[in-house]
Formats: sequence, C-alpha cells, structure tokens
Amino acid sequence: MSILKKLTPKGIKQYTKSQLNVLCDELRATIHDTVMRCGGHLASNLGSVESTVAMFYVFDFPNDKVVFDVGHQCYPYKLLSGRADKFSTLRQAGGISGFPKRTESEYDAYDTGHAGTSVSAAIGLAKARDLKGEERAVIAYIGDGSFNNGLVYEALNSLKILDTKILIVLNDNGMSISPTVGGMYDIITEIKTGDKAEGIRLLESFGLTYVGVKNGNDLDEMLDAMSQAKEMLKNGSVLLHIATKKGKGYEFSEDHPTNTHGVPPVGSPKDKEYSEVLGESLCALAAKNPNITVVSAAMKEALGLSEFFEKYPERAFDVGICEENAAVLCASMAAGGLKPYYTIYSTFLQRAFDEIIHDVCAQNMPVTFCIDRAGISGADGETHQGVFDLSYLSLIPNLAIATPKDTVELTKLLEFSETYNHPLAIRYPRAGRVIFPTDDKPIELGKWEYLHKANVENSAKVTVLAAGERCIILAMKALKELQAEGLDCDIVNARFIKPLDEEFLQNTDSKYVVTLEDNVFNGGFGSAVTNALLRLQKGCKIKNFAYRDEFIHQGNVGALQSEYGVDWQEIKAYIKSVLV
Amino acid sequence: MSILKKLTPKGIKQYTKSQLNVLCDELRATIHDTVMRCGGHLASNLGSVESTVAMFYVFDFPNDKVVFDVGHQCYPYKLLSGRADKFSTLRQAGGISGFPKRTESEYDAYDTGHAGTSVSAAIGLAKARDLKGEERAVIAYIGDGSFNNGLVYEALNSLKILDTKILIVLNDNGMSISPTVGGMYDIITEIKTGDKAEGIRLLESFGLTYVGVKNGNDLDEMLDAMSQAKEMLKNGSVLLHIATKKGKGYEFSEDHPTNTHGVPPVGSPKDKEYSEVLGESLCALAAKNPNITVVSAAMKEALGLSEFFEKYPERAFDVGICEENAAVLCASMAAGGLKPYYTIYSTFLQRAFDEIIHDVCAQNMPVTFCIDRAGISGADGETHQGVFDLSYLSLIPNLAIATPKDTVELTKLLEFSETYNHPLAIRYPRAGRVIFPTDDKPIELGKWEYLHKANVENSAKVTVLAAGERCIILAMKALKELQAEGLDCDIVNARFIKPLDEEFLQNTDSKYVVTLEDNVFNGGFGSAVTNALLRLQKGCKIKNFAYRDEFIHQGNVGALQSEYGVDWQEIKAYIKSVLV
Repeated sequence: MSILKKLTPKGIKQYTKSQLNVLCDELRATIHDTVMRCGGHLASNLGSVESTVAMFYVFDFPNDKVVFDVGHQCYPYKLLSGRADKFSTLRQAGGISGFPKRTESEYDAYDTGHAGTSVSAAIGLAKARDLKGEERAVIAYIGDGSFNNGLVYEALNSLKILDTKILIVLNDNGMSISPTVGGMYDIITEIKTGDKAEGIRLLESFGLTYVGVKNGNDLDEMLDAMSQAKEMLKNGSVLLHIATKKGKGYEFSEDHPTNTHGVPPVGSPKDKEYSEVLGESLCALAAKNPNITVVSAAMKEALGLSEFFEKYPERAFDVGICEENAAVLCASMAAGGLKPYYTIYSTFLQRAFDEIIHDVCAQNMPVTFCIDRAGISGADGETHQGVFDLSYLSLIPNLAIATPKDTVELTKLLEFSETYNHPLAIRYPRAGRVIFPTDDKPIELGKWEYLHKANVENSAKVTVLAAGERCIILAMKALKELQAEGLDCDIVNARFIKPLDEEFLQNTDSKYVVTLEDNVFNGGFGSAVTNALLRLQKGCKIKNFAYRDEFIHQGNVGALQSEYGVDWQEIKAYIKSVLV
Repeated sequence: MSILKKLTPKGIKQYTKSQLNVLCDELRATIHDTVMRCGGHLASNLGSVESTVAMFYVFDFPNDKVVFDVGHQCYPYKLLSGRADKFSTLRQAGGISGFPKRTESEYDAYDTGHAGTSVSAAIGLAKARDLKGEERAVIAYIGDGSFNNGLVYEALNSLKILDTKILIVLNDNGMSISPTVGGMYDIITEIKTGDKAEGIRLLESFGLTYVGVKNGNDLDEMLDAMSQAKEMLKNGSVLLHIATKKGKGYEFSEDHPTNTHGVPPVGSPKDKEYSEVLGESLCALAAKNPNITVVSAAMKEALGLSEFFEKYPERAFDVGICEENAAVLCASMAAGGLKPYYTIYSTFLQRAFDEIIHDVCAQNMPVTFCIDRAGISGADGETHQGVFDLSYLSLIPNLAIATPKDTVELTKLLEFSETYNHPLAIRYPRAGRVIFPTDDKPIELGKWEYLHKANVENSAKVTVLAAGERCIILAMKALKELQAEGLDCDIVNARFIKPLDEEFLQNTDSKYVVTLEDNVFNGGFGSAVTNALLRLQKGCKIKNFAYRDEFIHQGNVGALQSEYGVDWQEIKAYIKSVLV
C-alpha cells in the first residue's frame, strides 16, 4: 500500500498514469480486505475503482461535489479523500460509514442510502450553486439498478425546468443487487451495444448530452472520458455512461456479483434467518393456493425468495428498485382476485407509504407485507434502520400489524395471512431463532399469548408486553436474573401490534405494565398500549422501553438497542424497583 | 337530456353515431351544470367526453376494466355506467364520489385519487386476469400531467417484466392543474407534432405500440381509434395518445383551464384562504432573503404562489406531479446553502414520506414544509383527507411541526422559519380567518400560548389544548356555552405539535387536560400529550378528541369532524361532566 498510505486528497493530481494504476490496485486490495473483515458492499465498490480515480484526478473536490446514489460505490472515493487511515473502522460503531456522510468529511456533499436520490440531489446542489453565483461541477454517480427508480425519472424530467448543469455518471454493470431489468434498461443497453440513435435522442430530450465509455474499468479510457465530460459540462448537462464489471478484480466476486453485493464479515455466525423461513413458508402456501403471488423490489435473494422464483416463475415478480410500483401492483393484483405478498426491507417500504395508504388500505385489499430487517439493522447506519415501521403503519386504518416471536411463528402468521382478507403487515429482524415450543393453536387476529406467568402471591404484579423476538429475548434475560433474586413477572408475546389484544388489557390485574419494542417510541407499540390502558381506565402504571427520538447511527445491534433505550438491564432494574 | 336519461350501460351499443354525438352534448351539459352546483373537476372531465363515449361503445364494461388516473376524468364514465340519476349528489355526503370507487359501482375497477397509479394498477389487474385465465381488456386512462410522475415510469419499466397486455389511453391536453412541463412531455409532444420516430421507438422499448389521434374531441376519430386499439391489444400493449382540449365545449373553461380544474360551487363564501397568506408572506420574506426558494409539485396556483412565481421566477420551481423529486430538490438546495420552502397539500406529501426522513430530516436540513389542505378536506373524500400528517411527521426525528391558530399566525410562523435552521412543517386547512389579536412577541420553538384563562376558584381546573384554527374555533364555541352556564376552562393555542411545550405541561395545575386535533388519534397530537403527561408524572386526567381509526368519506368538513370524533358539543359535554 505504498501509494495509498501517502496519498493526500490533493496529491493525486501529481501522480503519473502508472502510479494511478498502482493506486487502483491498492484501492481494490484495501476494499477487499476491509470488507472481508468488517462486512460491507464489495462487488459494486470494486467495479467503481477506475472511474472514481479518474473523477478524483480530473475534478476538484471538495469544491466540486459528487452525490453517490445509494452509496454502495463510495468506498474508493472515501479512500481517496483522506479517510484511508480510518478505513479499517468501516461500518463499526464510531467508525467510517458505509455510505456518504456530510458529518464525516467535507468531501461528502450529500448523504444517501436509499436508491434514486442522486440526480435530484445533484440538480438541487447545482441550482444552489447557480443562485449563489458559485463555480463548481456537480456530479451524480449512479448505478444502472438505481436508474430504474421512478425518482430518477422525475429528476431527469425536471432538469430542463430547473435549467442547470450537472454531470451524471451512469455506472452500468448490468446489476443492482439482482440483474437489472426493465424497459429503461433495455434502452440504455441498446445505446451501449451499438443501436444508439434513438436512445441518445431520448436523453437529449431530457437535456443531456451522451458520452459512452466501453470499458469503465480501463483507467486510460476513464481519464479521457472524465476530461471530456468536464469540458462538455461547460455547455450543458452530460450523461457519462460507463460499462463496468461488478466485482472487477476479484474472481469470485466477478462470477458471483449477487452473493458479493453485501458481504457479512468472514466468520459471522450462520443462524437460520427469517428470510429463509419466509421463502420456505411462501413456497408451501403457494403449492396449495394458486392465487398467491410474490412481488419484490430488486431483492429476491436477500429476502429468501430464490426458490419461490424458481418454482413459481409465473407468480413471482421482481420489478427492480421500484417500491411504489410494487405496492400498486399488489393492490391491483388483489383487486383482480389474487393474494399478493409484498416482500421488502423495512427501511425501503417507507418509499411506498402513500401507496400503502391510498392503494392497499383505503381499498382494504388483502395484501400481505413481509417486512424484513425491521428494527435496528446495525452496521448500515441511519439510512437503513427499520425503526419507524410500527409507527408509520399503526396510523393507517384497515391495516393489521404482527411481529412474530420466532421463526416458527412467522410460518404460523403466514398461514394466518392466507385466509385473512384485509391488509396485513408482518415485520421481523434479519437473524431468527426458534425460541419456544409453539402450541398447535392457529393464530387469531389481535390475540397475544403468555410466555411466562409469574408465580406471585401477596406481591405487586408486573406484566411485560414484548413485541417481537428481540424484545422477547431481552424480557426473558431480565426474567432469569429477576428469578435468581426471587422475583417474578409475566412475559407476554405481543404478537399483534394492531389490533392490540384489548381483551387481555381489559382483564389484566397487573399493577405495572412494561412495553418493549424494537422501534421508535413516537406512534409505536408502547404509545398505543399506553393510550389503550388509559381509555380502558386501568389504574396500572406503565413503563415504555422504545428508541428515543433520534436517528440511530451505525454499530452493533445489541449495543445500539441499549444505547437508544431498550436495554435488558434497565428493564430488569425497573421491574426490580417496583417489586422490591 | 333525452338520451342520457334513458341510457342503460349496455344500451349505448345500439346507438347511432348521431345519437352518440347528442349523448356527448348531454354529458357535457350535465357535467357542467352539476359541477357548478356541487363543485368538482370541470375542465378535465369536459375534455374527456368523446374518448370516454368511444371507449364505452367499443369495450365491454364491467367485464373489461378501466383505471382512471387520479380520477379527474371519470365523470363521463360514471354517467354512462348507470349513475346518471344519482349524479346530482356528486361530492355530497352519501352521494356520488368525485373519484372512482369500487364500493359505488361494479363498473369502478380500482379506486384512485393520487397521481400516477393507473398504469401499475392496470398491469396488476391484467396479470391477475392472465393468471386466472380470464378474458378482458384492461385500460389505464391517464392525463399528460400524471404521465410525469415517477410511478408511471416504474410501471412502464415493469410492463415487460410482468409480460402482460394493457391499453394506455394518454389523454393529452397539455395541462395537469398547471401546464405540463418536463423532458418526458417534450418527447410526447414531439410525437404529437410530427417528429415521431425516436419517441415511438422509446415507447416500443417499454413494450408499447403507439396509436395517435389528432383530435380526441372528435367522436368519429375516437371511435375508429378505440376499435383499432382493441384489435391491436390482442397482440400486445398499446399506447393510444389522444390530443384533447381541456374544458372542451365551454368557452370560459377552454380559455381558463387552470381556474376551472377544480371548481367550488357557485355562491361559495370567499374567505381569505391560508394559501393567499402563504403567497404574500413568502414574497415578503423573499424580498429580503435572496436564499429563499419555493418548490411546488404542479399546484402553484392552488397554493397561492402565482405572485411568487411571477416576482421570483429564478427562485420558484414547479416540477410537475413529482412530489418525491421536489422533496430531494429541497434537501439538496438546503445542502447548497439555500432556504427552500416545499409547498404542497397534506395528502400528496405522503408521497414524499421517505424523502422527508432520508433526505431532509436525517441530514437535518433547513427545509420548511408548507402543508395546505391539512385535516379533513371534505368533498374529495377518502383519498384526499389530510388527517394523517401530524402522525406520520411526528415520528420523524429532527422535524418540528407547527399549526397556526389563524392566518396571521401563519405569517409569524413563516417569519420564525426563516431563521430556524432545521426541518420544519407548518400545516393548516384551506379556509382561514383572523381569529384573535396577536401580540408582537415572536414565535418561540415549542411554546404555546393561552387564548383564555379560566376564572375559577375552589373548582376543578380544565385546560383545553387545541391544535390549529379549526380546533380552536370548536374550543371557543364550547367555552362560550360553558360560560353561559357559569362554567369556565383554559383554552391554549398548542401551536407546536412537536416539540410539545413541556414547560407548560410540567407547570400545569389542571386536573383535566383535553386535547383537540384535526388528525387521526393514532400517533397524533393527543397521543403525544398523553405520553408526555404520564412521563412527567402529572396526575391529571386526559381526554383526547381526534378522528377514529377509519378512512373518512366525503362530506361537509364540519359534519365530518363531528361524525369522526371531534365535535364541539361533545367537547362541551365532557368539560361540563367533569366540572359539575
């Protein structure tokens, strides 16, 4: 790492081409080694090395600005912009973020994490430049997967309206997480493979001049193209379309770009994840019910749906990074008599918020949302935490919300969903376990279950209402320690967040009710329980454990839970304080 | 109305062309007269008469299905499908909806209200047809304004992926509410005006075959084109592009399509609306602050911004029906040092939910959301009520939320916003008044004010916390009646929903606290106050008035407020019951 170690952000301008080529090798090695250790996005970052080096060589950051769409291609940029010495802390608590972060460096112009924002953001930054009379280039660096997102189209549509100049670098490796699909990508591919005229005219309609690069992993080609783009940018907006290879430079990664898109650290424990159980359960249901369909937004593998897509290709739809379209497709398939399952990460479902209200719930359609990565998701940080879903879903009429106590209960909830003829959301974290023996009783809407009944006499009674596996584990941990001290409390699997088990709440004789959730407090489970208990005029005291009103940074899931307000020792301490 | 009166949905097939022409005239007259009396969408529905008659004549509804995008063009269809006798109840409580409603007629295949859902919905319905082995045509009927929305692009992108056949009728009148703008519209216009090849190739890339109609208000042309499209639909998806005149047939409406897009009933009282005050206040601020920009999503007139757009064209941006793009533009303009104001209706802001979280609030950007039509909006029904915003905004960290007590306080809140360097949402209903003399004190973040202090001794104290003008009016009405009976209570202008005035709550010595809001209960203002009072361990009793957990149908604003849970007589009765 002789060159990267000594590199300063401005120093790159003095490098020879052969030094720059060595730099590319060093960047690639550093990214590979760091991701193997820390986890992170490998293949996309390996593929963007040469284009980023060329961009950094040709443009003048941080005065010039670049917005990385999603941010899965920002590692080389981070290494070039003075963060090589700290890069070993990638995705660790307090360390370098896996995404652009304005608070981390003046070189990061705009935070990203969700797809499709870069072109809008570049236009906004460019317009601010114009109005403030500043001089700088503004660049959106975007992959072909994000280029499918409707927001990009809205932005392209408005480029002429805002009458400003940006450079769009379209890094086209033919993949998002899954291979890129759809009409727009066909147009882009046509341009790349030679049949250029119409596609280029299309881009001109949006106010873009087209420059194509055949091999975006060739540094010489990239240096020339970036210089050309910089020159053309004086006259108008430019689309620099570069064909790259996802995973470039590492054989396994080149051959397996889907498996190496997001990579866990080597040696991570391999539990059975909720996604696997989702895939198996949906396959089992689909075998009996021909109306079941599955819709995914570019994440079928991560959501455990590979087998479903193989077994039922005619009923499985991956529409690319188009979360809104996926939601309306589900609502309308349901209107047409099908039974659709929308599988998605919690944080990305935010994109379909209006369609959940307007298309699914206002029409009371039997769409089931299978929401993975709910709660704190950990190393991806602020933009990827799934800690809002209980709140933004709870406010929507007609929608039931469940959170399984373990992977077995996910299967049971899916069985319940099959005959439930209204909108239903099931949310769960990534890692799953089988915690408890499950009885044979089918799930009933809005019914909770005791996991432990306290053995208490002549003592105040405490009931812990725990929502979802993670919170149940914390509750049981607290219980074990309390029992060791001769204390006891009820533990309840509050598997339905909405409707609440009002009968349970009505009948409880507890003096203290404690709620636990893997979600922000505002508008969430604890808040709903509190309001229900007041409405029912129960005299009990209520204590809520939920995340406080802040964006949650990157780190270890358990540590973040504690840090932001859901800590088993505090739960135990509270219960002890009211019992002793 | 000799023909329309006798028309049955199936009967139209037997009509001669001259009868169909008379029918068109009668439809136009009926729509005009009804909208003048009931309010509603005039110009768009006048422009779609011939195409709808042709569609109804050629296709076989309700077995064939049509999805009207937004729904502003569905009146002729409603009149043709057996609802002419009830059409005089348009937009009234219990009457015909201004939008497609499955619950109203089997002819309405899919409910709409927000823009851009029709193509996705048609694809979903068509895929359901395919999988169920049914035979029917599925049509998306969409205006050129909606065609700008990113969701349409996501849907077009997925047409090949879902491998199904739909007909898209693109009713191109060159307007949404404002004239249509943007790159995609330029492409569509190019096709319309003769330079066809590239645009048509673009549509082919999405899997669509193009048919153009020069005069979509000519019944003969439309009948031929619909028959042709029906035939072509056997082989693949079709885009039928028809050029129409918005407001066709009524001179004033043709000449003033913006003013006649949405029309209030003749003789409606003309208050000074919040939108007017918004426009004046933003102009005043912009005169002194060159960093202020305004972004709108196709609604500048309705939001009171015409003057701003005229005075400050370089700082005013109407990006078309692209709510997400508008939000990211605001966040990035703020990142570039500007002070952006995003002006929008409450219900449409739902579309930008993820961008509010991910782009504006996670980056803590000084974007101000000016949210009009908040609370119950009335005659437009379920899809247009602005009753969720307090809830979906309250769960987002870093975002302050205010609701002015009257139009004067809107101006003061905007003055406050100018130096407030974080995300801020200001929400208000349409109609505004000047209710109270306002003191000269500037607004302070999270500070409420007494509007009335009770004159009580040796009596339980009641404090009413009212959020926004409408609730304050209800509170004052209740107070007046209570005072007539010798009773009294405090009335507080709870102008900040977030942060709450915790100092006020900490210091209150009231035994009873009553909250009023023009929003659903779940996750809203009352819920937040309840939780805060419990956390502060105040022993007071709390009573919340807010809307119950249901979609709110169309009707009169005041009547709906009462019906769904915020009724001044009930407020009075509650206060009396605890005081006497």
